[in-house]
Amino acid sequence: MDYRSDTFTRPTKGMLDAMQRADTGDDVFGEDPTVNKLEAMMSALFGMEAALYCPSGTMSNQIAIKVHTLPGDEVICSTLAHVYIYEGGGIAFNAGAQVRALEGDRGMINATDVEAAINPDDVHKARTSLVCLENTSNRGGGCCYDWEEIEKIRAVCNRHHLKLHLDGARLFNALLSTGQTPAQYGATFDSISVCLNKGLGCPIGSVLMGSAAFIREARRVRKKFGGGMRQAGYMAATGIYALEHHVSRLAEDHQHAKKIAAALLEKEFIGHMLPVETNILIFEVKNPWSPVTFRDYLAKEGIRVMAISPTQVRMVLHLDISPDMVARTIEAIRAMA
Amino acid sequence: MDYRSDTFTRPTKGMLDAMQRADTGDDVFGEDPTVNKLEAMMSALFGMEAALYCPSGTMSNQIAIKVHTLPGDEVICSTLAHVYIYEGGGIAFNAGAQVRALEGDRGMINATDVEAAINPDDVHKARTSLVCLENTSNRGGGCCYDWEEIEKIRAVCNRHHLKLHLDGARLFNALLSTGQTPAQYGATFDSISVCLNKGLGCPIGSVLMGSAAFIREARRVRKKFGGGMRQAGYMAATGIYALEHHVSRLAEDHQHAKKIAAALLEKEFIGHMLPVETNILIFEVKNPWSPVTFRDYLAKEGIRVMAISPTQVRMVLHLDISPDMVARTIEAIRAMA
Amino acid sequence: MDYRSDTFTRPTKGMLDAMQRADTGDDVFGEDPTVNKLEAMMSALFGMEAALYCPSGTMSNQIAIKVHTLPGDEVICSTLAHVYIYEGGGIAFNAGAQVRALEGDRGMINATDVEAAINPDDVHKARTSLVCLENTSNRGGGCCYDWEEIEKIRAVCNRHHLKLHLDGARLFNALLSTGQTPAQYGATFDSISVCLNKGLGCPIGSVLMGSAAFIREARRVRKKFGGGMRQAGYMAATGIYALEHHVSRLAEDHQHAKKIAAALLEKEFIGHMLPVETNILIFEVKNPWSPVTFRDYLAKEGIRVMAISPTQVRMVLHLDISPDMVARTIEAIRAMA
Amino acid sequence: MDYRSDTFTRPTKGMLDAMQRADTGDDVFGEDPTVNKLEAMMSALFGMEAALYCPSGTMSNQIAIKVHTLPGDEVICSTLAHVYIYEGGGIAFNAGAQVRALEGDRGMINATDVEAAINPDDVHKARTSLVCLENTSNRGGGCCYDWEEIEKIRAVCNRHHLKLHLDGARLFNALLSTGQTPAQYGATFDSISVCLNKGLGCPIGSVLMGSAAFIREARRVRKKFGGGMRQAGYMAATGIYALEHHVSRLAEDHQHAKKIAAALLEKEFIGHMLPVETNILIFEVKNPWSPVTFRDYLAKEGIRVMAISPTQVRMVLHLDISPDMVARTIEAIRAMA
Repeated sequence: MDYRSDTFTRPTKGMLDAMQRADTGDDVFGEDPTVNKLEAMMSALFGMEAALYCPSGTMSNQIAIKVHTLPGDEVICSTLAHVYIYEGGGIAFNAGAQVRALEGDRGMINATDVEAAINPDDVHKARTSLVCLENTSNRGGGCCYDWEEIEKIRAVCNRHHLKLHLDGARLFNALLSTGQTPAQYGATFDSISVCLNKGLGCPIGSVLMGSAAFIREARRVRKKFGGGMRQAGYMAATGIYALEHHVSRLAEDHQHAKKIAAALLEKEFIGHMLPVETNILIFEVKNPWSPVTFRDYLAKEGIRVMAISPTQVRMVLHLDISPDMVARTIEAIRAMA
Repeated sequence: MDYRSDTFTRPTKGMLDAMQRADTGDDVFGEDPTVNKLEAMMSALFGMEAALYCPSGTMSNQIAIKVHTLPGDEVICSTLAHVYIYEGGGIAFNAGAQVRALEGDRGMINATDVEAAINPDDVHKARTSLVCLENTSNRGGGCCYDWEEIEKIRAVCNRHHLKLHLDGARLFNALLSTGQTPAQYGATFDSISVCLNKGLGCPIGSVLMGSAAFIREARRVRKKFGGGMRQAGYMAATGIYALEHHVSRLAEDHQHAKKIAAALLEKEFIGHMLPVETNILIFEVKNPWSPVTFRDYLAKEGIRVMAISPTQVRMVLHLDISPDMVARTIEAIRAMA
Repeated sequence: MDYRSDTFTRPTKGMLDAMQRADTGDDVFGEDPTVNKLEAMMSALFGMEAALYCPSGTMSNQIAIKVHTLPGDEVICSTLAHVYIYEGGGIAFNAGAQVRALEGDRGMINATDVEAAINPDDVHKARTSLVCLENTSNRGGGCCYDWEEIEKIRAVCNRHHLKLHLDGARLFNALLSTGQTPAQYGATFDSISVCLNKGLGCPIGSVLMGSAAFIREARRVRKKFGGGMRQAGYMAATGIYALEHHVSRLAEDHQHAKKIAAALLEKEFIGHMLPVETNILIFEVKNPWSPVTFRDYLAKEGIRVMAISPTQVRMVLHLDISPDMVARTIEAIRAMA
Repeated sequence: MDYRSDTFTRPTKGMLDAMQRADTGDDVFGEDPTVNKLEAMMSALFGMEAALYCPSGTMSNQIAIKVHTLPGDEVICSTLAHVYIYEGGGIAFNAGAQVRALEGDRGMINATDVEAAINPDDVHKARTSLVCLENTSNRGGGCCYDWEEIEKIRAVCNRHHLKLHLDGARLFNALLSTGQTPAQYGATFDSISVCLNKGLGCPIGSVLMGSAAFIREARRVRKKFGGGMRQAGYMAATGIYALEHHVSRLAEDHQHAKKIAAALLEKEFIGHMLPVETNILIFEVKNPWSPVTFRDYLAKEGIRVMAISPTQVRMVLHLDISPDMVARTIEAIRAMA
């Protein structure tokens, strides 16, 4: 029972079969039919012109940021944004761009703060050119943006000629939770990256979407990073399978998360818990436990969780956690003193 | 009477004569005796191994940051640091490094926050490699670090193998105000940049100091930026003149600043003023005035000030502001309703 | 019958089974046992300290170049080097390094030219820090370096403190052709990248090898590019299978290449052919044929070749080309007028 | 008598007076009237929309290359181009662009080779976006392009949507030698950099010209490099003086060069000399002399020359070399055995 991350999932039997049977070709030459099909499915689903299959969500994000900015530009995002704190300084390394990090709320920023952070046209200042949102916000406990706020941020971007990128690593979780459609997102963002690996359960892979011109440039950048792969169709086939079979089941993960949250909150030693909106739980562990002793205790019960700060533990639900496992996890928690 | 910045000063007669009489050569070949003398004077004064003359303080800072970091590294500084907000995004543009900006107090950061901001050794995280301080802090109203805090930050850097750079654009103002010696600073920082242009009154120029190995690399980076100049001695001569004639007179600017501050604070429409520690005044302007109307009113009196935010005005003292001008400025302020 | 490149191969049944059965985990956390096994096998085979699995040979090369250089450094390689002409300008884009391209012979450079190209220690000049060789040389018609020349280049690098990287995309072809061992190469180069995709027949993948310290840095750079993949073991399993089953069979491709070469050279309209040393044929096509008409004619016979310049055609042998196919290809060539 | 370079000149009395009397302001705020006047003079002379004063020719060139390219682009220039071999690898360091160096003739390239070197639109290839010419060519012995060839290269650039930059460090020498006007050059190039330091005799400085939009971006890049200077008017004043007094006198340097060339060519030990078209002499020194012994011998006579390769010496004429000095130099050469 591995609750450390939804990146630890293993493919299901059906997914493995889809992988095995994939029809493939050399994707660097655009000849892999399975990759082409996955890209077409995703761009159709989101109503965006084009899509690009990438080895990871980090690469999808980094390519998008690179294409949208020039060296010396400034990117506005949350202080907790994955692109800022978990991609190895890639915004500066790959794009030569500077981050203007906004405090925000659980990794979510708002239109007012964004507008206030835009630099004037002055040689002393980096040129603001891009806003990055993350939905759901990983470090914010899987929380979801209000759609109205996203629309307001889009309006700010329009007024100031900024691009708007979505790190949608767990976007399907947000869609399920808040009820928008992929097409609404596709119509609102200049680019969206979606991970196939996390809740969707693929071994690897991410899809970046945008205009045809944007994806043409993205393909160039992917090549420069060495992200162009040959018979990538074996992996892309798992993405197609996931889109067909694993999207609606994310609701189950959300229910599981709420059940475990309830069990945890009965305990005196559980402190503040970020509101549980999707498949992630982030909560404080207090005396007599610490995040590390809590983690180690559960590990002995066959339950793996992650201590993510000196005061906090994270648990992530996903398709390898069955209802039965959830029940056993709740039992284990209840047994703690 | 130009209080907008101490970058607006004009050379004195003595300085112009020094410029005219300078003995020069081709500094790209290391053959300019005046540049060599200025570099030697500065490194001797600060007890650092070597120095490099640069066209501007921005270049001195950018070279230092480039030499101390690798692309993808993280630099810790204040959210108000000149290197972060007034150098065109140069940290990302030139060094490919990411900024971790700390809230701090008036542009000054502390050892506790610095240590908490250092990233663990993890591929997801940018590698923290450099801390930048600014003393005095321009955007912090010319405030000065406590020497003890600097020593604590140095200790943090030692424990975590970080470099420590000082943006000392107005370092001589800080030294006068707090009483440390250049040698104390030289022994504490890995590199220091000092502006000759600001309070010291030179037309252009800045000096970067550090170890011999550091300056060797810095010289390479200066060449790549195109900062290597030929008969730079004409300008360097003004720096030597300033070191010999304009350092101790900075105390006069500090007294002038305090006098004008007192006059301002008698006015109802002057709101919060940052503590006046050196030659900079930053204060709120309230109803019925605004920073813009305040500025425009004084401009008609021949007094130029700068509106630096929707609520704040900045005035900077320097060697082109005489005691008589200060008196006239105070009169003009007193006459305001 | 696709002779355009050895990147067009499809996995064999045995390889697909190995993929399906792979034991996997999250490689970003170092928990994928199959990736770990592949890396260990390769580093053991070459006698190098450590290895890193990457999505492509381009990424392996780009990571190596990035780790070995600083921005502004100069990299010496052939004018025909894959890293220079087929990786999207990645040396400049990713590493900020400049290329000093040597004319050489069929993509191979020599120790004398390398030594002459090293820049003196002078701020005007980029600092030479890396030499890249490619063996076999793709654009040179699959030709192989003399081992003695490599040893001489190594000696030059030692004398001048340069790193030496090998783009060994098709290194196993060279080893078979010239008789050295992987260990000899491992002892001579600072880093080696080997493609699993080309002659070895994997869908994707490349392995980069070097010292433990080098691979630690490489892992950081891989993350920044977004080359860290989660359950990469499905793909890595194909690499292990290929190492166990597809290395010695490369000799067959070499024999096939020689047979087809002989058939081609009987034709009046075939001009200069680069010496056939491994699995690549590059030859001129003359009147009344052109590379394009030659290609299109064979395409109708079910034989795909690539026109790589206004005068040249390339054919590449690999494991999807059987002896029977070679015979049919030779027949088709003989039938041409 | 310093013939090593025309960068070693000292200002004349008139130039020093102009410097002393300059009316100045803070150029970072656009308030330096002398800088503004110099920029206006130059853009008017060349018929280009705008101009920017920079501390050095290297910075002018590097800014132009940065503004014209994106990271990963390819720049076409000569293997002997100053921007490629004498600017510290700046094209890669500052712009992240790759160089495609053409053999050419004495540092000059031709339209046919340029067109052949343009990359096709293919993700494997860097995108060709800029051609850089140098006129006169320093390393080519001060030789000058045929105007017709420049027009042909412009036509190639137009056909392929490439920008065309001129490194005109010694452009006034070329204009004098070949008879074109500044306006012809201004109408043909997207950007031109001209050095004030070399033959024109200023202590420092260079002017970059181009469209208004180009110069706006260039001003941003100059700030990021730290090339924005405050009271730069003291130095700009020397540029205005030079434009008014030192342009036509370059003809004298050309005559001096020819006279010294004739004296040298009478000597058995002088080998191949590059055709003398302007103010530079590059010639082989043969047995029993070597470049180093030749240099050292003349140094004892008070004549400094530069050994620029194991076989070649360079001598450069400029305004600090009087007719009398030329006569004495010729005598010294004649006296050599």
